Amino acid sequence: MPENLLQGKVGIITGALDENSIAWKTALKAKEQGAKFVLTNAPIAMRMGAINELAEECNTIVIPADATSVEDIEKLYDEAKEFLGGNFDFLLHSIGMSPNIRKGRSYGDLNYDWAMKSYDVSAISFHKMMQVAEKKDIMNEWASIVGLSYIAAQRVFPFYTDMADAKALLESIARGYGYRFGKAKKVRVNTISQSPTKTTAGSGIGGFDSFFTFAESLSPLGNASAESCADYIITMFSDLTRMVTMQNLFHDGGYSFTGISEEMMDKLSDK
Amino acid sequence: MPENLLQGKVGIITGALDENSIAWKTALKAKEQGAKFVLTNAPIAMRMGAINELAEECNTIVIPADATSVEDIEKLYDEAKEFLGGNFDFLLHSIGMSPNIRKGRSYGDLNYDWAMKSYDVSAISFHKMMQVAEKKDIMNEWASIVGLSYIAAQRVFPFYTDMADAKALLESIARGYGYRFGKAKKVRVNTISQSPTKTTAGSGIGGFDSFFTFAESLSPLGNASAESCADYIITMFSDLTRMVTMQNLFHDGGYSFTGISEEMMDKLSDK
Amino acid sequence: MPENLLQGKVGIITGALDENSIAWKTALKAKEQGAKFVLTNAPIAMRMGAINELAEECNTIVIPADATSVEDIEKLYDEAKEFLGGNFDFLLHSIGMSPNIRKGRSYGDLNYDWAMKSYDVSAISFHKMMQVAEKKDIMNEWASIVGLSYIAAQRVFPFYTDMADAKALLESIARGYGYRFGKAKKVRVNTISQSPTKTTAGSGIGGFDSFFTFAESLSPLGNASAESCADYIITMFSDLTRMVTMQNLFHDGGYSFTGISEEMMDKLSDK
Amino acid sequence: MPENLLQGKVGIITGALDENSIAWKTALKAKEQGAKFVLTNAPIAMRMGAINELAEECNTIVIPADATSVEDIEKLYDEAKEFLGGNFDFLLHSIGMSPNIRKGRSYGDLNYDWAMKSYDVSAISFHKMMQVAEKKDIMNEWASIVGLSYIAAQRVFPFYTDMADAKALLESIARGYGYRFGKAKKVRVNTISQSPTKTTAGSGIGGFDSFFTFAESLSPLGNASAESCADYIITMFSDLTRMVTMQNLFHDGGYSFTGISEEMMDKLSDK
Repeated sequence: MPENLLQGKVGIITGALDENSIAWKTALKAKEQGAKFVLTNAPIAMRMGAINELAEECNTIVIPADATSVEDIEKLYDEAKEFLGGNFDFLLHSIGMSPNIRKGRSYGDLNYDWAMKSYDVSAISFHKMMQVAEKKDIMNEWASIVGLSYIAAQRVFPFYTDMADAKALLESIARGYGYRFGKAKKVRVNTISQSPTKTTAGSGIGGFDSFFTFAESLSPLGNASAESCADYIITMFSDLTRMVTMQNLFHDGGYSFTGISEEMMDKLSDK
Repeated sequence: MPENLLQGKVGIITGALDENSIAWKTALKAKEQGAKFVLTNAPIAMRMGAINELAEECNTIVIPADATSVEDIEKLYDEAKEFLGGNFDFLLHSIGMSPNIRKGRSYGDLNYDWAMKSYDVSAISFHKMMQVAEKKDIMNEWASIVGLSYIAAQRVFPFYTDMADAKALLESIARGYGYRFGKAKKVRVNTISQSPTKTTAGSGIGGFDSFFTFAESLSPLGNASAESCADYIITMFSDLTRMVTMQNLFHDGGYSFTGISEEMMDKLSDK
Repeated sequence: MPENLLQGKVGIITGALDENSIAWKTALKAKEQGAKFVLTNAPIAMRMGAINELAEECNTIVIPADATSVEDIEKLYDEAKEFLGGNFDFLLHSIGMSPNIRKGRSYGDLNYDWAMKSYDVSAISFHKMMQVAEKKDIMNEWASIVGLSYIAAQRVFPFYTDMADAKALLESIARGYGYRFGKAKKVRVNTISQSPTKTTAGSGIGGFDSFFTFAESLSPLGNASAESCADYIITMFSDLTRMVTMQNLFHDGGYSFTGISEEMMDKLSDK
Repeated sequence: MPENLLQGKVGIITGALDENSIAWKTALKAKEQGAKFVLTNAPIAMRMGAINELAEECNTIVIPADATSVEDIEKLYDEAKEFLGGNFDFLLHSIGMSPNIRKGRSYGDLNYDWAMKSYDVSAISFHKMMQVAEKKDIMNEWASIVGLSYIAAQRVFPFYTDMADAKALLESIARGYGYRFGKAKKVRVNTISQSPTKTTAGSGIGGFDSFFTFAESLSPLGNASAESCADYIITMFSDLTRMVTMQNLFHDGGYSFTGISEEMMDKLSDK
């Protein structure tokens, strides 16, 4: 059992909704590895009971903040710094939402105000969190910032509509800010492109189940779970990955580089 | 000299600002190859004298339209269809603008309203043009839609700030709508990722000159000119490339896959 | 109907086996567009009746050559130059063969001598053809060299075994020599990554049919035919694509950037 | 300080030449984290004094083996298993050599026998090590196999000649065998694409110094050292990265996604 991977490290974890969340599992593992952190979530997304329970388990607090609001982020950082007693070593961005998907609008019938909302919540918030952090000079040297992405940023999954574009934007922001923050303060920024995951958020997307199964039968190791994703995030927060930055890292059991599997060929030839 | 590559084809060309524009040169070559088309540009970007002259040379009209406005696009399509006498075979999106760049805001000091404007003008307008086209069912089968992009969508060029993210968004939209329009009506959608080009728009970006020189000395064939880009666009509009879709095509003299050139190594070792 | 795309151009076309071959169709179209060329194939792969018929139709000759033999390539170039009356403007490499696939050896049971043979025939021959061409200074400025590849170079298709590695090697050689030949003589080098194609060679691969169907139902435009590939090759040989080099160009109806299609989701959810 | 990341894990480390080697540093860190392993190197590459000293420090033995020889690999595995008392959890492939580079042959003047040697030593040996391992069923479930690569597999660095092609082949083999070994036994296979590194092997390449400096001034975090690469390899051997497979992971301070840096622009505009 690895120990002390995050000993003495301090950070912020967004997006812990319930016990299925990647962020939730990351919080538990970060604590196990010696980290201190605060939790945050959007006031409207918070399930107070659940997240308070997690906070308690992690000896920490929850600071509600809307990540699309620069003011909320500023307040979040100030309060977090006070509670944690210093600047930050890691930050997990695990935030995404598309009104177009929620309301069943197809990619050929996007509501553009909603699309702007999708981009703002799911991608631009990542830029805002970094721009505010840099302006406040609140990240320690070699801090590690991770955002969660999905392979729809590279290839089309029709049901993912404007979220695909939001993820492409998110990954571009990771590169752009990764360059800047690396030069400025040796802070590194990466995205992790995770398998379809049976979280409460993931399952909300139409066609999720058949796609989950499709990915499962293509990936040589099967789909990666939320728990294994949390493990991977821990390595990205640790000092062992200091020179990895501006990358989009696939954590998907090999899905991203599998064209077809024998299992899939069998399935299709049965028909 | 190739002939008749676009014989009988009908389309729309956006973004012809002046004789340095890629769109301008594309218009001239499209006419040469037998195409009929209308020109369009944003009312505020239009240099009336210049674009009217081009229109005259191409026996066509200019229809002003703001590509961020769904209504303007609808009107553009209706008027273009009337003038051209039928549905469209090609569409060139050559539109981009960043208030943050214009006003010298760095990537760590973005104005987010302006960033939204950058995305809207430079990327979402591409989605809007396609969504309106699909709703109006105004593209012919096997029509070809091309957007202009830049390698900042893949790698960081610090001076390109939020335009890099806009280009990543643009390319993602090309894939997403390319899938949809391909399935729906065999319409194909691609982006061309062009060398830094001495257009009036390109030159507006700070640091453009030193980057132009950097790219020139890395690319084995040198930077691609606006004129050669127009040639390439013509092939993408022709029937000879019917099965190419959802691609981002580098037109850059080999820059994109060159790590370092001997010339650059010499330059640097001189120092 | 486009005309004169290759007017006055002179070149070499390898790999025309029978009327299903991409190379065969390329020869017919190149002639149609005004090119002069010689045909060549490996002595053991040649079906004399068929290829002589094609040669007659194209007013040309067949020069047998084993593309893994530097001597044969030298002889080919000398004789071709004599017949054609000058240096070359284009070269099509359409050569591939894996003894491991032919003899049904899986990727976990490769015969390494045979693997070397696969690499030599399918990839290194491309380097040899270029190295000999450069040494003989037999390419004209702005000549265009194209090799045929397959997406197994990027993603795993289990039945493709060591041919996948050969294609990765081929694409790397295209980049490496593309840089060199671009600097030296403005010659450009690209690979076209084609849909699975019902050629005599393609169909020899086990599992080809179910993969053909899989690709067909993922690609929004369906699989690209040998004939449309020949069209695309013509554009790459023309002067309209002069600044495209060192690229791997997907010609596949959108397959390469499609994660899943609605059609595939329906198929899988029926089960 | 992280602890016990590789507690109880058993493996094989190739390529430890001297104290500058990535493999050497990996050995030291693997021991620190609780692993047991054997060292191996090609008889002709071994510097007996040095590697025996490392073995002593790690309480292990050195088993000479030529990784291009299936028989040597078989013998290596048998002896290692006996010494280690069980099957393997990790394997580091850190082997590469190009006679063409050593003898100063340019990419336009390759000796093809030597090129075959480059591929065999630097890439096919990776396949051989995996094929023998699978046939002997000598890897434990969830074992992790890592090969070392370089970005010349994606972009051209003229001085890297046939090594670039060998690295492209290596990465393709990692994907192909990663798929196979994942399905067969949940073994994962990845390559790490490392910054230019001042190892004894790296420095042997002509032009290394000016390229090292070029990469250093492009990478926002600077070039990654051999030591930090060893850290990263440890995370890839650990259970925290179980679902990462078939990937090529850039460990390069951000070089791979940086187009140009401000520092480079300054350098070039001085001239």
